[in-house]
Amino acid sequence: MFRALHQGTHPLVLPNAWDVPSARVFEDAGFPAVATSSAGLMVSRGYRDGEEMPRDELVEAVARIAGRLTVPLSADIVGGFGRTPRAVTATVRRVLAAGAVGINLEDLEPSAGGLYPAEAQVLKIEAIRRVGRSMGIPLVINARTDALRHAPGDDQDRFREAIRRSTAYRDAGADCVYPMGLTDAPAIATFVGALRCPVNVMVRKGLPPVTALEKLGVKRVSFGPSASYAAMGLLRRASREVLDRGTYGALLEGAITFDELNQLAVGKVPGPTPGG
Amino acid sequence: MFRALHQGTHPLVLPNAWDVPSARVFEDAGFPAVATSSAGLMVSRGYRDGEEMPRDELVEAVARIAGRLTVPLSADIVGGFGRTPRAVTATVRRVLAAGAVGINLEDLEPSAGGLYPAEAQVLKIEAIRRVGRSMGIPLVINARTDALRHAPGDDQDRFREAIRRSTAYRDAGADCVYPMGLTDAPAIATFVGALRCPVNVMVRKGLPPVTALEKLGVKRVSFGPSASYAAMGLLRRASREVLDRGTYGALLEGAITFDELNQLAVGKVPGPTPGG
Repeated sequence: MFRALHQGTHPLVLPNAWDVPSARVFEDAGFPAVATSSAGLMVSRGYRDGEEMPRDELVEAVARIAGRLTVPLSADIVGGFGRTPRAVTATVRRVLAAGAVGINLEDLEPSAGGLYPAEAQVLKIEAIRRVGRSMGIPLVINARTDALRHAPGDDQDRFREAIRRSTAYRDAGADCVYPMGLTDAPAIATFVGALRCPVNVMVRKGLPPVTALEKLGVKRVSFGPSASYAAMGLLRRASREVLDRGTYGALLEGAITFDELNQLAVGKVPGPTPGG
Repeated sequence: MFRALHQGTHPLVLPNAWDVPSARVFEDAGFPAVATSSAGLMVSRGYRDGEEMPRDELVEAVARIAGRLTVPLSADIVGGFGRTPRAVTATVRRVLAAGAVGINLEDLEPSAGGLYPAEAQVLKIEAIRRVGRSMGIPLVINARTDALRHAPGDDQDRFREAIRRSTAYRDAGADCVYPMGLTDAPAIATFVGALRCPVNVMVRKGLPPVTALEKLGVKRVSFGPSASYAAMGLLRRASREVLDRGTYGALLEGAITFDELNQLAVGKVPGPTPGG
């Protein structure tokens, strides 16, 4: 079901949550699937984005969210918590056992800040594909490349490297490719035309609206950490208002209620199955 | 220091956080102390407000937040996770060891939904006072009563019972009393006049602004779960906008950045000590 959402006419709009209630708000709003944001989830537990957070804790956080959702959950596992295919597939096995049916894997080395060799990343993706088969879970692999920012050369070199890597990741078994930082409409069109497989773009300033992305052939639009950025921005505005003016407008306007918040802690009661 | 904040001319405005970044945003905004919201914190981990969440997990969540703050942290322990003074003080000891220097204790039975007898609550508060002394921690006890909603009789009976209970809690050693649901200016004035000790009110619709509360003699204004309600309300609006119109305004306007989010995962570098 999650894979099919990448193959319709309309792009899959995939909101990234960081805890149970953020995921449940997205589910209640009608999104057909939810993802985690590594930055949002890790910072919410007091770790910077990357692989500072112990893997056990990431798995526990994914299980907690998956356990409260009825829609599919995709988990961001950053670089996979290890340099070898064996280490990465161990992470994938645990995240799938925790209830995720999709994973995001990136090619940025979390400690060094440079890119893993494309060939090493290909071996990891092939190994993840085999894990899905062996576990009988048709998982969706979203292969992110950070080449647009971290590959050597000028902008054009980096763009070519992003296409080269994404093509290799697609051929290694990725269901969707995700060139981090791709925002500009002409560049998106060129990228989608070159790849001819589902392409993920992230919400950020300058990203065309969903209808325009659909025309460009984009199949997946993820929030990335933007919902975390927005929520923390709201707290900052609310704080300034209370401290400077002594009023509570930003805290009270458009807020949900106590009963609604509590309801987010528990799983949604599944509606009747269509036609069932 | 935290206790002294309850004794100035201006009320202490105390924001309630639910995780590390929400607490750190409040610290960075300039609040001199931060509290936890039981509803916010518990729902963020997938539990309804109350005592469904295992006590160990509450303590772990408090430790995680306290470990990233330089300002004092007050922890909401709901009814104390137990019916006896011994059980409640065991919770308080662990929460203080986790780094909190204040606690909120309420007199609502989490399972039954009625009030604990005032006399039983007094014994718990006296026991908590002794724990602070024995641990050498001058902790701030904020004693909440739910009498305004849960005591028998009519509105006037419930108001009298809230005063009777708050007086008993004050005499048992509470530093501050917190009649949940007190919003109306004349009622606040009567309450503050009757208690003659620090009184906590919570942000909600109809609460007078901070300047008016100061004139009424209120010494502490807490957010309660309102920041959680506001953040989840924002996600709901952002979801509707993306799903209905395909645009990202609510996600992008007033948002913080990736670097700012990451910075919230780590403790603030303490500024120079005044005069030091």
